[in-house]
Amino acid sequence: MGELQPPRGTRDFGPAQMAARRRLEDRMRRVLHAFNFREVQTPTFEDLELFLAKSGPGIVDELYTFKDKSGRDLCLRPELTAPVMRFYFGSLRTEPKPLRLFYFGPCYRYDRPQAGRYREFWQLGTEVIGDASPEVHAELLWLALTLFREAGLRNIRLRIGHVGMLRSILRHLKIAEPDQPPLLRLIDKRETAAIREILAGTIDRSRIDLLLSLFDLSQRVFDLKEDDVRMVVGEPSTWRVLLDDEGRTALAHVTRVGNLLRAFGAEASQFAFDPMIARGLEYYTGLVFELDCPDLGAEKQLLGGGEYDLSGVFGAAAEPTVGFGLGYDRTLVALERAGAPPEVNERVDSLVSPLVREAVPQAIRVANDLRSLDLRVELDLSSKGAKRSLQRAAGMRARLAILLGERELKQGVASVKNLDTGEQVELPLADVGPRALGWIAAVPAATALGGGPSGAT
Amino acid sequence: MGELQPPRGTRDFGPAQMAARRRLEDRMRRVLHAFNFREVQTPTFEDLELFLAKSGPGIVDELYTFKDKSGRDLCLRPELTAPVMRFYFGSLRTEPKPLRLFYFGPCYRYDRPQAGRYREFWQLGTEVIGDASPEVHAELLWLALTLFREAGLRNIRLRIGHVGMLRSILRHLKIAEPDQPPLLRLIDKRETAAIREILAGTIDRSRIDLLLSLFDLSQRVFDLKEDDVRMVVGEPSTWRVLLDDEGRTALAHVTRVGNLLRAFGAEASQFAFDPMIARGLEYYTGLVFELDCPDLGAEKQLLGGGEYDLSGVFGAAAEPTVGFGLGYDRTLVALERAGAPPEVNERVDSLVSPLVREAVPQAIRVANDLRSLDLRVELDLSSKGAKRSLQRAAGMRARLAILLGERELKQGVASVKNLDTGEQVELPLADVGPRALGWIAAVPAATALGGGPSGAT
Repeated sequence: MGELQPPRGTRDFGPAQMAARRRLEDRMRRVLHAFNFREVQTPTFEDLELFLAKSGPGIVDELYTFKDKSGRDLCLRPELTAPVMRFYFGSLRTEPKPLRLFYFGPCYRYDRPQAGRYREFWQLGTEVIGDASPEVHAELLWLALTLFREAGLRNIRLRIGHVGMLRSILRHLKIAEPDQPPLLRLIDKRETAAIREILAGTIDRSRIDLLLSLFDLSQRVFDLKEDDVRMVVGEPSTWRVLLDDEGRTALAHVTRVGNLLRAFGAEASQFAFDPMIARGLEYYTGLVFELDCPDLGAEKQLLGGGEYDLSGVFGAAAEPTVGFGLGYDRTLVALERAGAPPEVNERVDSLVSPLVREAVPQAIRVANDLRSLDLRVELDLSSKGAKRSLQRAAGMRARLAILLGERELKQGVASVKNLDTGEQVELPLADVGPRALGWIAAVPAATALGGGPSGAT
Repeated sequence: MGELQPPRGTRDFGPAQMAARRRLEDRMRRVLHAFNFREVQTPTFEDLELFLAKSGPGIVDELYTFKDKSGRDLCLRPELTAPVMRFYFGSLRTEPKPLRLFYFGPCYRYDRPQAGRYREFWQLGTEVIGDASPEVHAELLWLALTLFREAGLRNIRLRIGHVGMLRSILRHLKIAEPDQPPLLRLIDKRETAAIREILAGTIDRSRIDLLLSLFDLSQRVFDLKEDDVRMVVGEPSTWRVLLDDEGRTALAHVTRVGNLLRAFGAEASQFAFDPMIARGLEYYTGLVFELDCPDLGAEKQLLGGGEYDLSGVFGAAAEPTVGFGLGYDRTLVALERAGAPPEVNERVDSLVSPLVREAVPQAIRVANDLRSLDLRVELDLSSKGAKRSLQRAAGMRARLAILLGERELKQGVASVKNLDTGEQVELPLADVGPRALGWIAAVPAATALGGGPSGAT
């Protein structure tokens, strides 16, 4: 006897769940289309080497690995940036720049299943290749905010930083390179007590205080009114102490991005400057950002990304690239928690039943007509009589029940009952489609979440 | 340096290919929705045991297998019927019947890559659970024909048979059970000479001739005008000899299905009766069918399916089920060959360029407006002047170029150039969106493949 459950850490999705997942996907695709991002797709598995080259040997413990019959090491993809960039460097390098790509598909991570974390999970992501300007960065972040707005999620917070700033700060504090990784892990988790402990004895207390004060800074929302570094940071003296040339350039870049984001219409409550984003400094090369939904507690990050350069992995010349990955499953959880899950229409528009065998051709004709109008039709060719058919229509919450009995057949009509209003009419067969469409259009089964992507103007 | 190609037998899909694949998917989804089929999704990998239980130990050579860290045997799914039925027996048994499900996703087969066959390939499939009536079967086959019609593929041939008939014929010929599999393989491939050879000595020549005459029958298109077995088979005496009770019941079922399919509007040239479909007799239990596209040569089958019962695998009570699998990749090849690939719109609706930095907020506002109308906008915030922007717009085949220079900024207008007509106007910012929409709606970039699913009435 076979196992009835899917493998540990994976899920089956039923019709209602799939309708919700596809609806959110449709909305996000519409936004991506409006922003002129184009979809690419890569295989579900890749050469293991690809991810080792991107992330180092440590990643192998988190991968589903296997060999093909010629002994080559493969693995299920844990993320999609490396495959998409492999595709880019292999086949898409001559495309005009900036090249804006997106992808959507399952990824695989071999870790302990826990609430909101799965071994098979879906990622929607973007990569913008060939342009590192603050204009392109701002538009990408505006896209991120627009995706969530169109999904119906309001309570989000985007934090924007730059590794150049953090690097500058670490240089100023004279933290040696080998000592940086543990410190960065603590910074990432905002563990101020542990940071104090690790730094005590290496640098003086006032500098530690200075570093920790940046956390307070990152908790505030900055008012990016002017294209002026001083206005962003509030306290220019702090930055003059902390930042060298690289740090100042980074700060100017982030400021410009913030100002543009404001011009796009981003709400002040939805984005903030955060110099303390400590996403992998060995991977990111410039702008970094994270987007959280505070409703979600510990697993609150919905999106993350930044500037990176994988050209070295493929032996190619440097190519500025920026992208983000969006956790699709977690976004759905966030929408549920916010009481705004994707609205879906699971209702059948019409049940069509011939009540006598002779009426089967007419019932088929009516069903064909309704379906040609994109209406959802349950055709019940084994009807057990009018009463049973009406019960069945009510049971499946159909909006209309269309019955064809002996009498209807003789008169060339169909009996059409609107189950929402109780109204019942007899109509010539050719009129059934238009009338049904009118009735159904009058009372939409599900309201759209909102209009198309719109500016905040 | 990393490998730039995807693993052997797998593919990357670029933006134009993905747009075509998604467009076909959308069209097929619309049809499935109108027929009230609902989508389910299962994991990309399953317990190896599931497929061994369904298909026997021989299948293991064709699978990508691996172990999880607790030593459990997993594999990438080679098909989706077993996973979907696992899901059904585990979680969906109480749903009202008939339960109509569909799925769409990649499957994996470990064989030698060859033209049109990939190790990662996409399947779209259906399962209808809990109703074995000819009415439900006919509607499922009509759905299959409608999917291809809406995709734009005309040259298809559906062949319909029934394992009850073939079983009856084998009984009549007194072929012992152990001798049947090799014979059935030859029947499946229509290798008449080899069939003669294998049967010579076991049954007399006239019976072999009778068997082989059924191939001629299957090549012809039957005119299923009357609900009468004799009308279907042309030669009732043949059937009286060949078919026992099970065979006759099977034939009556197929005849009813054919008559109904005709009532749905199926064209006589698109479907035929074929008693010699020898799809796995140990798997299928009743109706069987195959749909070919003759344009494709040896790899011509686009869809196949039939009645089966996997309840035994899950230790459950029998449940009549019928379904089909549609080869998505091969369908796309067939559409290409037929000169009817999914039409896609790869054109950008508008390039929006501020020509001076002061115009950036206005350019952003225009881009937001156009995007809120679902128009596809490339926002060029790093413009190098009007000439370069127009060149860029032309290079990407944008339909409109919208420029905001110093003069436009002063007058509160935008210069809008229609690159298809050469027309150029200046418009107040608020009027840009509506005018752009009007211009673009007037000349659609890509025509739809046809209307919605429509009957043949």
